[in-house]
Amino acid sequence: MPKRVDHEQRRREITEAVWRIAAADGLEAVSLGQVATAAGVSKGLVQHYFDSREEMLAYATRRLRERVEARVATRVRAAPGTPRATLRTLLLGLLPTDDASRTDELVAQAFFLRALKDPAIAERFQTGHTLITDAITDRIHALPGDLDAPTEARILLALATGLATALILGQLTPGEAQTAVDQQLDRLDPH
Amino acid sequence: MPKRVDHEQRRREITEAVWRIAAADGLEAVSLGQVATAAGVSKGLVQHYFDSREEMLAYATRRLRERVEARVATRVRAAPGTPRATLRTLLLGLLPTDDASRTDELVAQAFFLRALKDPAIAERFQTGHTLITDAITDRIHALPGDLDAPTEARILLALATGLATALILGQLTPGEAQTAVDQQLDRLDPH
Repeated sequence: MPKRVDHEQRRREITEAVWRIAAADGLEAVSLGQVATAAGVSKGLVQHYFDSREEMLAYATRRLRERVEARVATRVRAAPGTPRATLRTLLLGLLPTDDASRTDELVAQAFFLRALKDPAIAERFQTGHTLITDAITDRIHALPGDLDAPTEARILLALATGLATALILGQLTPGEAQTAVDQQLDRLDPH
Repeated sequence: MPKRVDHEQRRREITEAVWRIAAADGLEAVSLGQVATAAGVSKGLVQHYFDSREEMLAYATRRLRERVEARVATRVRAAPGTPRATLRTLLLGLLPTDDASRTDELVAQAFFLRALKDPAIAERFQTGHTLITDAITDRIHALPGDLDAPTEARILLALATGLATALILGQLTPGEAQTAVDQQLDRLDPH
């Protein structure tokens, strides 16, 4: 009996090749041919799954968004506790401190300028931003004290974004980034 | 008398064409030919000034770094005052709120992944980071109170970086970004 091809699996392998190339060398290096080579398949097979480079890129950003959301959701579920503890887990979950999250951050960087011109990719950035902003704002509302939740949420999310960039560039250690997050949370909830 | 060619001027015009293309479409769109077209000169003339695309990109990042430093320095000189006021000027000067600073931010984004692989470009990112970190840390030391200056400097710089990203993506208004900076500065120096 011939082996059944798992199309979802094939598509995922091709998408992971897109991520690896984009993370290493930027979007300029992502071509159907390069992706085929990196995925160990023929260019024809890549074209069987994706009609064009653009379609392949759009799919790669959708999957990336799902992956980041799943990771953050898993972390939050795994660490229930006080609103402050959940907030800390959420924020640290946005920092690239292991191989998977570092790749995600690099791929997002590779697509950044594209997001400004391509409505489909922009929409994925925007959805992620809204989800995480809402999650952070909810936890700030649950903290004691009378905080300006929208402004504090903007500060925390911008802080995490900036720390992520600095981590990728090697300007900070993971420990320094964590201290920065804790210092800021101490201000919101000194308990 | 034949008009003397101002080589510095020509090189600048070509560099500005590199910035415009990189800001609009990323590094993948920057070729000697595209740059020549955008600068309104021949490809041969671009090659007269730059031996290769790589040399052209390296020069473009050096000039970008100089431009950002000059803008921040001008702002700081123009707004002497309390350490907190200077700190505020420094931080707001890092935000893309007009055409020039927006282009600078987009060009920096376009070069981001390249900075991880190319030591010459990495060095420009690093120099800028060190200069601005030192400037921020100095001002924090001058604030009243007993602050952990290195950590507070990391928080402020990451905050500015993250706000810059959110501004470019249209996730924040300039007013919201400014409120976030002021809110954070209120914590360091409530006066």
